[in-house]
Amino acid sequence: MPTYTPPLRDMRFVLEELLDAPGHLKALPAHAEIDIDTIMAVLEEGGKFASEVLLPLNQSGDREGCTLDQATHAVTTPKGYKEAYRRYIEGGWAALACDPAYGGQGLPILVNQGFYEMLNSANQAWTMYPGLTHGAYECLHAHGTPEQKQTYLPKITSGEWTGTMCLTEPHCGTDLGLLRTKAEPNADGSYTITGNKIFISSGEHDLAENIIHLVLARLPDAPPGTKGISLFVVPKFIPNADGSLGERNRILCTGLEHKMGIHGNATCQIALDGARGWLVGEPNRGLAAMFVMMNAARIGVGMQSLGLTEVAFQNALAYAKDRLQMRALSGPKAPEKAADPIIVHPDVRKMLLTARAYAEGARVLSMYCALLVDTYLAHPDAVVRKEAEEEVALLTPIVKAFITDNAWIATSHCLQVFGGHGYIAEWGMEQFVRDARINMIYEGTNTIQSLDLLGRKVLGNKGATLKKLGEKVEAFAESCEGDARMAPFIEPLLKAAELWATLTFEIGAEAQKNPEVVGAAAVDYMRVAGHTVFAYWFARSAKVAFDRLDSGDDFYKAKIETARFYFAKLLPEIESCAATARAGLAPLMETEHALA
Amino acid sequence: MPTYTPPLRDMRFVLEELLDAPGHLKALPAHAEIDIDTIMAVLEEGGKFASEVLLPLNQSGDREGCTLDQATHAVTTPKGYKEAYRRYIEGGWAALACDPAYGGQGLPILVNQGFYEMLNSANQAWTMYPGLTHGAYECLHAHGTPEQKQTYLPKITSGEWTGTMCLTEPHCGTDLGLLRTKAEPNADGSYTITGNKIFISSGEHDLAENIIHLVLARLPDAPPGTKGISLFVVPKFIPNADGSLGERNRILCTGLEHKMGIHGNATCQIALDGARGWLVGEPNRGLAAMFVMMNAARIGVGMQSLGLTEVAFQNALAYAKDRLQMRALSGPKAPEKAADPIIVHPDVRKMLLTARAYAEGARVLSMYCALLVDTYLAHPDAVVRKEAEEEVALLTPIVKAFITDNAWIATSHCLQVFGGHGYIAEWGMEQFVRDARINMIYEGTNTIQSLDLLGRKVLGNKGATLKKLGEKVEAFAESCEGDARMAPFIEPLLKAAELWATLTFEIGAEAQKNPEVVGAAAVDYMRVAGHTVFAYWFARSAKVAFDRLDSGDDFYKAKIETARFYFAKLLPEIESCAATARAGLAPLMETEHALA
Repeated sequence: MPTYTPPLRDMRFVLEELLDAPGHLKALPAHAEIDIDTIMAVLEEGGKFASEVLLPLNQSGDREGCTLDQATHAVTTPKGYKEAYRRYIEGGWAALACDPAYGGQGLPILVNQGFYEMLNSANQAWTMYPGLTHGAYECLHAHGTPEQKQTYLPKITSGEWTGTMCLTEPHCGTDLGLLRTKAEPNADGSYTITGNKIFISSGEHDLAENIIHLVLARLPDAPPGTKGISLFVVPKFIPNADGSLGERNRILCTGLEHKMGIHGNATCQIALDGARGWLVGEPNRGLAAMFVMMNAARIGVGMQSLGLTEVAFQNALAYAKDRLQMRALSGPKAPEKAADPIIVHPDVRKMLLTARAYAEGARVLSMYCALLVDTYLAHPDAVVRKEAEEEVALLTPIVKAFITDNAWIATSHCLQVFGGHGYIAEWGMEQFVRDARINMIYEGTNTIQSLDLLGRKVLGNKGATLKKLGEKVEAFAESCEGDARMAPFIEPLLKAAELWATLTFEIGAEAQKNPEVVGAAAVDYMRVAGHTVFAYWFARSAKVAFDRLDSGDDFYKAKIETARFYFAKLLPEIESCAATARAGLAPLMETEHALA
Repeated sequence: MPTYTPPLRDMRFVLEELLDAPGHLKALPAHAEIDIDTIMAVLEEGGKFASEVLLPLNQSGDREGCTLDQATHAVTTPKGYKEAYRRYIEGGWAALACDPAYGGQGLPILVNQGFYEMLNSANQAWTMYPGLTHGAYECLHAHGTPEQKQTYLPKITSGEWTGTMCLTEPHCGTDLGLLRTKAEPNADGSYTITGNKIFISSGEHDLAENIIHLVLARLPDAPPGTKGISLFVVPKFIPNADGSLGERNRILCTGLEHKMGIHGNATCQIALDGARGWLVGEPNRGLAAMFVMMNAARIGVGMQSLGLTEVAFQNALAYAKDRLQMRALSGPKAPEKAADPIIVHPDVRKMLLTARAYAEGARVLSMYCALLVDTYLAHPDAVVRKEAEEEVALLTPIVKAFITDNAWIATSHCLQVFGGHGYIAEWGMEQFVRDARINMIYEGTNTIQSLDLLGRKVLGNKGATLKKLGEKVEAFAESCEGDARMAPFIEPLLKAAELWATLTFEIGAEAQKNPEVVGAAAVDYMRVAGHTVFAYWFARSAKVAFDRLDSGDDFYKAKIETARFYFAKLLPEIESCAATARAGLAPLMETEHALA
């Protein structure tokens, strides 16, 4: 069975030494009192919950999966899930980053995110139950009426009730403009909702006494397309005025999907068979209301893949030190043993270091984004809030797509380190790969993320946000002038940033002639963008580490080694990606016979 | 459920128009009579067997898996497998490429290989039962005593008995020098064999009345390491003198592995509990005897991944034409519909074309290798035989590693084309991905293949075989001089070939100082080698297609489009791979803290 040690040392490095998160939080009145020791104490406890409570259920949950009773529409989660959820509530974990007005602890998103990395390392399928609840919480918090908030938010905050987001229908996922679910107004101000949803994660389960569905549907007079979609809250049990549970609503799980992975999470087909719902926000503005939680949700998917990368790395590293097989090409390294541990082999090291570097890069980038989210939610200065919001909007598709693509590569490498044993369920490695695969798809496929990055976030404001990012890179490079240790990082970093900028300019110019150019280049462009951002953070991490090498803490040596590896062995991918991004449209579009 | 159409047109193109296989076979007395229509007639029938008999069992076999009765050690294969195997035998398919002296049909390996591509598209797990039998056949055919051949080969040829290769033990896979299974001589010339094997594919099942295990074990006086390993034939039922089945041998399945994929194949833990076996070949020469089937087995793994790539492509293409979602960035392409089919989107096309190109490249390269195998097995001229053997020895690790790595990429892309539906078992796409993963591991991991290519096959003879390959590329380039249509292919092809040669020289020079350099560069080097070989064959295919464009057959247009895509969007990967191959040892080896 896989083991897991929460990476608290690296989290502290990122939060305190690299990002100075406590310093930044001081500028936010809501979080000005929190210090690094408090943050780390929460994360330490959270790590224990992850490794002690959730990790032991990961493989068994995968084997067992969820079951649906067709007669009652009840879903049973794998053995132990319910008990773990009870402990989650009792520990107050559901309330961590929630609004104190509804019983929340009001901690920064940053802390919640570090917690979620660890939950996902331990058990992505389980973590999706509370994880998706947060989306419903945010929608209601931002757009609910005072009465709706009072009805739902305290119970969601405590974890007694969970939530879902009901978007997808059989014929539409990416293209929500096509959705058909209907909402007819009733005399009492509620709506009667009819339609079919699919792929509803955590859509039905036995962990909590009530499930609050946020459902997209069309009003009778709604215009076609995305401008005619409204958002409704549709509780499984309709709460009575006193907060107790009333009537069972006609929102029913009619089937569970059999999936490649995340077997412990119930992916539901949901029938709304005249269910009662209440409008959230304005009519026909449902997509906008839903999108308030999209940055957080997409960063959340990045955290799922970060979690899987970290746990896969830890287990592959342990195996590589333990497994004896063949001798090093330069002669025995462990002559006293029957063979050398496979960690002596350069390619095994390369696979391990790839996973380590992708985990560390992902941790920095996503923590940085969480800090930006906290800033735009809570900074007193509107200008600062806006800047933070724009920056996180640019970085969010990178967190979602780059980290999840990397996790697919990294978890597969970690499986490979195990040889044939990696393919066997018992070792747990193949589950990490299967679980990681969904993260490239949901909350907007990685192609959609790439289009969002290039088309909307970069070209959409003529590169203005990107330019600010470039200025940060240059400022950092200038700050390193004269530091010979940093030269091997700064030169390729500046080259990467220049390539990113040049590519942006080239594609922008081409796209004015033919917008399809954006679609043709977007996925390659995403790799260039992601690697440049990672390179920036690895260089900054190396700088911090160099400055603390004297401490004698080997942690800093490891940090520099990983950064060196990253620049030597992973960053060069941008060369090929730039070449293929520049190959243009014809090789893709003038292929009507090859794709006949 | 996935569908499958055997790619007979492309097979004919490769066999007849590109490789002139019938022409080459004329030089081989054993195959001089066969013509392309006969080959295609066999493949057409084989395609029917694959798509009509095996494909319908692929998903059900995956769901059901195999079961072991611990009391009797009997394994039950999924429903329908046994009946399919009966039809396989009745169709004479087992005998296709076997020696007529033992009842075989004596067809070229080439034909058998085309057949196996289709079997693997339809059902890799099932195909491994007869597929692995061939390894045992080849070992016995090459090294068995006349009596052993007479006892076993006719029954294996007819398919009545199947075979296995029992190499791996719990503590050794790659490093067979560590193996512990013991063989003690008996007075009657047989041996008593004791030990534990794992990962024995098709190690026990209910398809055939007997299973002939080829087992590696150590004699009592054997030297340590790989030079002390002998090969034994250990039948499940010991045949009587009259050919009937006798005593049940003490070679027992004690467990089945739960795997990521190929669930329909029984991956067995095998206990040899004083089993009786007979030496095959010379004492302590077991590894060499086993390695006669290694080229064929490794090419066979490439065919598994080719099969998966092809079937994944076909289904993703059909889905992309059918699924309506969003509008093209340049405006509606199907304004009469609610949305455009997703095939209009450039990145969807890129994912599809990647799969198509990897399938076509794999088909050519592996067919060419099969022709080389036929040549070295059956050409009357020893010099020609030796040349063919050397060339196939160079190309085999590329077939195994490059094609299987590509299939992992391609099947994952094809899954992604389906969006969320790709993650759902019902559609069958995620099974292709899971099944494809093992091919990167077994029959020598892809790292081992890469080391074999660079260390043994290229540097091992100081680049002599590689040089001959380079000369073929140059000769082809010269033959295209003055052909303006070919210039866009020839220039990058020559550049790739030069990069390959330069990289070889550089690594070779470095490796003289430190052999670890080979291990550090091998996997990147494999990508450069594979892409260059594919580029050569895509350029040659384009040449043939250009010359036949007048025929009006759109097949040739498709071929040229795919070649253009390949050069524009896939080949450029070699730039990054060359950069990382050149990054040297330090970033991997000076990482003792990062991999502490």
